[in-house]
Amino acid sequence: MRVKLVVAYDGTRYCGWQVQPNGDTIQEELNKALSDLFHTPIQTMGASRTDSGVHAKGNVAVFDVDSRMPAEKIAYALNQRLPEDIVIQGSAQVPVDFHPRFQKTRKAYEYKILNRRFPDPILSRYTYFYHHPLDEDKMERAAQALVGRHDFTSFASIHSQTDSFVRTIYEISVHRDEEDVITIHVEGDGFLYNQIRIIAGSLIKVGAGLEEENWISAALAAKDRQCSGPTAPPQGLVLLRIDY
Amino acid sequence: MRVKLVVAYDGTRYCGWQVQPNGDTIQEELNKALSDLFHTPIQTMGASRTDSGVHAKGNVAVFDVDSRMPAEKIAYALNQRLPEDIVIQGSAQVPVDFHPRFQKTRKAYEYKILNRRFPDPILSRYTYFYHHPLDEDKMERAAQALVGRHDFTSFASIHSQTDSFVRTIYEISVHRDEEDVITIHVEGDGFLYNQIRIIAGSLIKVGAGLEEENWISAALAAKDRQCSGPTAPPQGLVLLRIDY
Repeated sequence: MRVKLVVAYDGTRYCGWQVQPNGDTIQEELNKALSDLFHTPIQTMGASRTDSGVHAKGNVAVFDVDSRMPAEKIAYALNQRLPEDIVIQGSAQVPVDFHPRFQKTRKAYEYKILNRRFPDPILSRYTYFYHHPLDEDKMERAAQALVGRHDFTSFASIHSQTDSFVRTIYEISVHRDEEDVITIHVEGDGFLYNQIRIIAGSLIKVGAGLEEENWISAALAAKDRQCSGPTAPPQGLVLLRIDY
Repeated sequence: MRVKLVVAYDGTRYCGWQVQPNGDTIQEELNKALSDLFHTPIQTMGASRTDSGVHAKGNVAVFDVDSRMPAEKIAYALNQRLPEDIVIQGSAQVPVDFHPRFQKTRKAYEYKILNRRFPDPILSRYTYFYHHPLDEDKMERAAQALVGRHDFTSFASIHSQTDSFVRTIYEISVHRDEEDVITIHVEGDGFLYNQIRIIAGSLIKVGAGLEEENWISAALAAKDRQCSGPTAPPQGLVLLRIDY
């Protein structure tokens, strides 16, 4: 049977999702725990290959196994075998042709910025501390230029490996809470390598008054990575959920 | 001059506030950083001697120093010398007779419980994970018995060293957010050793349906630690602020 896992993790001490020769990864921990549970080598396929230091509340992985264990119980058995910073949020059987990456999806991400005079040690693992005052309303207005179906070349890493830079963003909102955490909430059909972090880095330039609001739409139109802002650091980013 | 510091910390890796022979403490890190900054041995006095693993957004410490550095600048200079999990939120000169513990105060604490089926690795450093469903409305109603001036013997550690167990609680609220974090917010004129954690542990028993709502007032009236609930674990507790 094919099983879908919803995976949450604190990415702080991992070199991202995907198995790699040097350094611990989320996928490697999952493969190890599953192989241990079912006494046979198991490889997972992930929906979103999050970067080093990026967190998730709802990434998705699938794997195939020949087992009589009810699919819903696998989450509990797996959590016993995983480190504390990776927690399966649920497991369910899916059709054998279900593929986490080639299926039509809606993905939701949040990027969090702590914008005040001093850092907060309780928030520092999960926010980017930015001291200079940011205008979150200006950021939200500027961000609306990115909503819709566009070529996002300007907002993708130059190391992106993709056939097409065209993606659809369904919505972007920016709001500040009472602790001065500014949250950039983005939903779309899929994102390019570093796309959310470059959007965050670019909106910060607008919010800080270093660029005008219409600079975002100009950057989008340029289709040139040089025309957008820096890649904001990974710890502010959380993959919230993937809807199929 | 006497200087007041507002101190925030992630208590995870510390053996609490107060200097002790074995293990790192917040106070020791502060004393070291201040002594280094002013090139003379400096001892701080803390307002609240938080326990091992407890966090703070606004603990208060004072110290005396003979220096021409403007008091407001000390926060910045100190943060350069402190580990990342301790951050001074502000510094100001106070009268030489200002004492952080013997002054009349209002203290605010929060205790956070993650109440859902699976843990969330992004919240686990700052919440107590409790899987069994809790009724937060019942918890809030039961908690009102603790508001006012009472002898809190039943809600203090048997290791408390104090002349009087009488304290005043100004308000207690309990609410659940959209991530299923239940926050117990407590404000009072001061708290006994482990008081908030025992209140949290007791309210959890009521919320879980293991005790009736009126069990809290009965426990209070008994003036006996045996009659209240367990001490909830430290990572859920944050000292929010101390108002003088």
